[in-house]
Amino acid sequence: MQRKKIVLPESEIPRQWYNIMADMPTPLEPPLHPGTGEPAGPDDLSPIFPMNLIEQEVSTKRWIDIPEEILEKYLIWRPTPLYRAYNLEKHLKTPARIYYKNEGVSPAGSHKPNTAIAQAYYNKEAGTRRITTETGAGQWGSALSMCCSFFGLECKVFMVKISYNQKPYRRLMMETWGATCTASPSTETQAGRSILEKNPDSPGSLGMAISEAVEAAVGDEYTKYSLGSVLNHVMLHQTINGLETQKQLEMAGDYPDVVIGCAGGGSNFAGNCLPFVRDKIHGKEIDIIGVEPSSCPTMSRGPFAYDFGDTVQMTPLMPMHTLGHDFVPAPIHAGGLRYHGMAPILSQLLLDKLIRAENINQLETFQAGITFARTEGFISAPECNHAVAMTIREALKAREEGKEKTILCNWSGHGLVDMAAYEAYLSGQLSDQPLPEEEITRALEAIAPLPKPRQYIG
Amino acid sequence: MQRKKIVLPESEIPRQWYNIMADMPTPLEPPLHPGTGEPAGPDDLSPIFPMNLIEQEVSTKRWIDIPEEILEKYLIWRPTPLYRAYNLEKHLKTPARIYYKNEGVSPAGSHKPNTAIAQAYYNKEAGTRRITTETGAGQWGSALSMCCSFFGLECKVFMVKISYNQKPYRRLMMETWGATCTASPSTETQAGRSILEKNPDSPGSLGMAISEAVEAAVGDEYTKYSLGSVLNHVMLHQTINGLETQKQLEMAGDYPDVVIGCAGGGSNFAGNCLPFVRDKIHGKEIDIIGVEPSSCPTMSRGPFAYDFGDTVQMTPLMPMHTLGHDFVPAPIHAGGLRYHGMAPILSQLLLDKLIRAENINQLETFQAGITFARTEGFISAPECNHAVAMTIREALKAREEGKEKTILCNWSGHGLVDMAAYEAYLSGQLSDQPLPEEEITRALEAIAPLPKPRQYIG
Repeated sequence: MQRKKIVLPESEIPRQWYNIMADMPTPLEPPLHPGTGEPAGPDDLSPIFPMNLIEQEVSTKRWIDIPEEILEKYLIWRPTPLYRAYNLEKHLKTPARIYYKNEGVSPAGSHKPNTAIAQAYYNKEAGTRRITTETGAGQWGSALSMCCSFFGLECKVFMVKISYNQKPYRRLMMETWGATCTASPSTETQAGRSILEKNPDSPGSLGMAISEAVEAAVGDEYTKYSLGSVLNHVMLHQTINGLETQKQLEMAGDYPDVVIGCAGGGSNFAGNCLPFVRDKIHGKEIDIIGVEPSSCPTMSRGPFAYDFGDTVQMTPLMPMHTLGHDFVPAPIHAGGLRYHGMAPILSQLLLDKLIRAENINQLETFQAGITFARTEGFISAPECNHAVAMTIREALKAREEGKEKTILCNWSGHGLVDMAAYEAYLSGQLSDQPLPEEEITRALEAIAPLPKPRQYIG
Repeated sequence: MQRKKIVLPESEIPRQWYNIMADMPTPLEPPLHPGTGEPAGPDDLSPIFPMNLIEQEVSTKRWIDIPEEILEKYLIWRPTPLYRAYNLEKHLKTPARIYYKNEGVSPAGSHKPNTAIAQAYYNKEAGTRRITTETGAGQWGSALSMCCSFFGLECKVFMVKISYNQKPYRRLMMETWGATCTASPSTETQAGRSILEKNPDSPGSLGMAISEAVEAAVGDEYTKYSLGSVLNHVMLHQTINGLETQKQLEMAGDYPDVVIGCAGGGSNFAGNCLPFVRDKIHGKEIDIIGVEPSSCPTMSRGPFAYDFGDTVQMTPLMPMHTLGHDFVPAPIHAGGLRYHGMAPILSQLLLDKLIRAENINQLETFQAGITFARTEGFISAPECNHAVAMTIREALKAREEGKEKTILCNWSGHGLVDMAAYEAYLSGQLSDQPLPEEEITRALEAIAPLPKPRQYIG
C-alpha cells in the first residue's frame, strides 16, 4: 500500500523559528525613513508596530523560541502533512519523486495563519487592542481576522476593492471571525480620499490598501498595523513550514533537488525554502525557485532598488526587487501574487544567487491546477497553482532527461474559496496577461528619483 | 500547554467497517419493489447498483474488511483529527468536556468521500464505467466527482436546480474534478421532463434529482447509480468515522455521555454514532442525538412508513421516517438536510429508542456557527451548524445542572464553500422556517395509500 502522507508527530513540531539573517552571505541593507531617506531604526517603526515584533524584525539571532501560547495555536492544524504525489507522478510518467507540503489544512485554508497567530500574540502581549491591515484576495485578511478573534483583538481590514466586489467569500470569512472589512480605496482615510479624488473608479491595489491600513494605525497608541508578507519577522514566522518539511523528508529518507514555491510578497515561498537556503549556504546543491505570475514578475524582471511598500509612500523605503510602488498589475485571479515588491530577504538571496525566479502565464497555472486536482484530489488556490505548474515543468524535464530527482512543491493553500477563478478558466474566459515591456520602463521611471542601494543592479 | 488535537496514527486506522445490521435488536423490514409492493431482493437492485455493493447492502456480517485500495485513498486525509473544544468550553463557561471530530479535512471538505471512495472503487471492480448521482447543496456530488476521477470513472451529477443556480462553487468543484453537472429537473430524462411539464419553474428537490439520476443509469450495463446517504452500505462505509473517534477518545481517556450529529439522509450522523449505538446495545448509557432542521424534521416529526426515496416513485419503497416523497422543504441553507426520508437503519434505531431526534431553527444554527468560528477557528457548513447548535445547548444544560459530562460533536465539514449563507445570516436576511402542521398532514396523505410496515407507528 502506498503511504502518500508523511505525518510529523505533534511532539516533533519545531519549537524555534529559523532566522536566516544570521546566515546570509550579504547582510540586508537597512530600510530608510520615508521622509529623510536616512536609515530607519526601531523607533521609526514603533508608531505602527509593537516593539517585540520590531525586535524580531532586526534580530540576527539564528534560532528564536516560539512561545508556548503560539505553539498551542499552531497545534490546531500543525504539523501540516507532507504528501508524496504518487498519482501526479504516474500521470506525468516522470521518474521524479514529487512531494508537496499541504498548508491548506489551517482553518483559514492557507499558510497565512503561521504569522498571523504570532503577530496577534505579540501585539496582545504588547498591549495592542486593535490591528489594522490590508488584504488582496483575502487570504491574509481572513487569517489575521481569525487570529485576532483567538486573542480578543479588534481587527480592521482594508481589502482591495476589485477583490472586495468580485470575491466576497473571504470577506465573509473575515466578518464571520468578527473583523470589519472595508473596500479600499475608501473615504475613511486621507490616503484613500486622495486616491479617489484622482480616480473615483480606482479598482484598488495592495499598495493603496497598505497606505490606508498604515494611516488608520498611526496616532492611536492601542492600534497597530500588521503586514502579512515582505517583512523579516513575517519570513521568520513562516519558517515553521520549511523546518517541518525537513523533518518529514528525513522521515521519508529523501532530500530535495528542487524546491518550488509561489511568490507574491514572499512569505509563502520564504517559509518553505529558507531552511533549505541555509543548507545551500552550507554546501548542499539545491535549485530553489520562486514562481511569479508573468503579469507581475517582480523578482524575475523588476530591478533591485529602494522603494516604498505602499502607493502613497508612507512606509519606509526597502531594498527589494520592485516594479514600482504605483504599479497596478493586471487583474489575474492569483490576487496574492499581485504585489509590486518582494521581501528584502528574498531579494538579497536572489542577488546572491541562492534562489532563482521564474514566471508563468495564467492559463498554464490553471491547467496545472486541474491536473493536480484530478490526480491528487486537492484543489489549489490560484496562487498555489503557480508552484504546481512549475513542479509539473520540472517533473517533465526530469522525464526528458531520464533523471530521478526529488522535487518539493510548497502547496500554500486550497482554492475552495476561489472557485469563480476556476469557472472563468473552465469556460474559456481567462487569458494570459504578461507584463508589457513599457510597463517595466514606467516602473523604472517611478523609482528613479529614490536613493540607490549599494547593490543596485538596475 | 493545552493539546487540542487528538491524532490517531495512520497505523491505527480501522481496517474494517462496522455493520450494525449484525447487532440491531429489531431487524430491518425489507425494501419493497416499487411496482409490485413485494419484498425486493438483490436482483431487483442490480439494474442500478453493482452486485458487490448490493451484497454489502443486505449483509449482516458484523465486520467487513476495507480493501487496501480504499484504505490507501482514505489515508490521503484520514485518520481525521478529534479536537477538544477548550476555547468553546471556556466561552460557554461549561463544566462539560466538548470534543469534535473534524471530517472537514478531506479534499472535498466533508465526510462524503468516506463512502464515495468505496462506491467508486467497488463500481470500478465490477466493471462500471460511468456513475450517475444526484446532489443537493453539492457536498455529495463533489465528493463522488473527486473519487470517480481517482478511479478513472465518468461521473454525471444531477444537482437540485435552486442550488445549481445559487451555489455555483460546489458545481465548479465537480467540474474541476472532471464531472458533468446538470441542473435538475432537466430535459435530459423522462422524469425531469414530466416534472417540468407540470411546473416549468420547479426549483428542484433531492427526490426529483434522484429520479433523474436513477433513470439515467438504468438500461446501460456500464452505467450505475450511486446514492450518498440513506442506504445500508452508505452507513457502513461511514462508520470509519465513529471507529476512529472511539480510538481517539480512548487515547484521551474519555468516553461520551452525549453523541451529536446532524442528520439529512443520515450518513453523517450514522457514520459517527453507530459504533456508539453498539456500545449502548451492550449496556453503555449514552444519549445519541440526531439533529434536523425545523423545516425538515423527518425523524423528529415524520411518521415511520414505507415510502419512495424519490419523487417519481422509481426507487424501492423503504421503511423509514418520512415527510412524504413529494415533500419540498423550505429553501434553508443547509441543503444537505433537505431530504424527505431518513436512513432505514436510523429510523429503526429511533423506533427502538437507541437514538433520539431533535430539530433546531435556522437562526440558532448560524448563531452557533459564528460562536464556534470565533472560539475554535473552524467555519462550519450550515448542515454541521445543526450539530454545533445542539452541542452548545447540551453544554449550557451541563452548566445549569453543574454536571461534568462529555459531549461528542460530529463536525461533518467546513463551510468555506457556503459563505453566501453566512452573508445572508450576518446581514439579517435569514429567517426561521419551521414546518407548518398542515404540511405534515399533507405528507401523511401522500404516503397513506402505500403498504404499511409491521412497525407502523404513524
